[in-house]
Amino acid sequence: MPRFRLTIEYDGAPFVGWQRQDNGPSVQASLEDAVLAFSGERVEVVGAGRTDTGVHAEAQVAHLDLASERFEARTVMNAVNAHLRPLPVAVLAAEAVGEDFHARFSAVWRAYRYVIVNRRAPLALDLGRAWHVMAPLDVAAMQAGADRLLGHHDFTSFRAVQCQAKSPLKTLDLVRVSRHGERVVVEAKARSFLHHQVRNIVGTLKLVGEGKWRPDDVTRALEARDRTAAGPTAPADGLTLVAVGYPD
Amino acid sequence: MPRFRLTIEYDGAPFVGWQRQDNGPSVQASLEDAVLAFSGERVEVVGAGRTDTGVHAEAQVAHLDLASERFEARTVMNAVNAHLRPLPVAVLAAEAVGEDFHARFSAVWRAYRYVIVNRRAPLALDLGRAWHVMAPLDVAAMQAGADRLLGHHDFTSFRAVQCQAKSPLKTLDLVRVSRHGERVVVEAKARSFLHHQVRNIVGTLKLVGEGKWRPDDVTRALEARDRTAAGPTAPADGLTLVAVGYPD
Repeated sequence: MPRFRLTIEYDGAPFVGWQRQDNGPSVQASLEDAVLAFSGERVEVVGAGRTDTGVHAEAQVAHLDLASERFEARTVMNAVNAHLRPLPVAVLAAEAVGEDFHARFSAVWRAYRYVIVNRRAPLALDLGRAWHVMAPLDVAAMQAGADRLLGHHDFTSFRAVQCQAKSPLKTLDLVRVSRHGERVVVEAKARSFLHHQVRNIVGTLKLVGEGKWRPDDVTRALEARDRTAAGPTAPADGLTLVAVGYPD
Repeated sequence: MPRFRLTIEYDGAPFVGWQRQDNGPSVQASLEDAVLAFSGERVEVVGAGRTDTGVHAEAQVAHLDLASERFEARTVMNAVNAHLRPLPVAVLAAEAVGEDFHARFSAVWRAYRYVIVNRRAPLALDLGRAWHVMAPLDVAAMQAGADRLLGHHDFTSFRAVQCQAKSPLKTLDLVRVSRHGERVVVEAKARSFLHHQVRNIVGTLKLVGEGKWRPDDVTRALEARDRTAAGPTAPADGLTLVAVGYPD
């Protein structure tokens, strides 16, 4: 069966998240419906990262298998895009891949970006795309706090209670905090993340940026291995899955 | 009467444009309603640029006069923002100014940015914020075409039929075309613009970028002084008023 790898952009606002669910429209179901509409085949579209309700993607990666041999990758891309309209989901690229390629299990890293708009005035152009934080944030302090989380740790304190991962052990390869005018951007990269891990890290670093916590408090929260020891979960709006990496 | 200068950000999508109109919600009326709600005064909010339906602003400038002496600029900003919720309009800054300041007549330049997303795939994250152009655009050719429009000219060919300006003579101080990955950005700056001037310029430069027109055709269109001689009007979605300049 031909397997196709898709690169997908979406605005998470109208969706219950990536994964098919009973309580509302998902990105996955929208893609599967579009595939059915053009090919007549009911397939599963397997994604690299199961983004939550309201979380966006610039380049989610997914794969699907078609029984028919008659579709080229370019046709799959154009046909899926035509049937996705007017949803804010777009297939940016499609390519034929071997059956050894698995969007989720072959992935060797995921990269996320979290955007905070740090100003007194409410959001207008960035509504639904950023977290509005009014108190001035000290980005150097946030980076110092973030550095405490780098490397291999038990991230229980930064893991959603409903997280289904077998182990809370993860290796955080990058957490970079930078300011661009009124925008504070947190970039995070790891082989994989726990449920809400990036948002819980950002919610914690915000406490450091506001001066309510010191970087040492981040270490203390990490070592507590208790979700209630870390900061609150940052809103989904500011989070975007920016890239997924594969071998080669 | 105290006069206040406001800097305003808005998403143009839900509005019929800046200017108060009978056929739908405008940014101006939304601001005037918010001022009334906190001050009890029905005032006119005068803007520097009358942006069209669907056109955005990062820093529109406006002024208003209040009869009451009791409000500080900071209070005006916070109160207007509180009453604007949940509309995508935000007052970024407010300051007390003298009666010689007029948002429209004191302005000495306006700067706009037009964003094209130049790719095969439809828009998802940029829906409503950019023009989707599928044919590959040659940015160097677009810049060569844009250069033909720099300076003082009769811009009748790039002026909406319903434009109310007394004269079609304008001085275009800057038109810069640049590519950032799949984004093609056109920046334009002038003391003032005719109705649809930026969008008509972009619609024309797109023809050059696609190779359908040569830069010489832009000169020919300009010299024709006939709206039908230039390219089509680019959609409002891609246009943002980015700044307004004043003396000092």
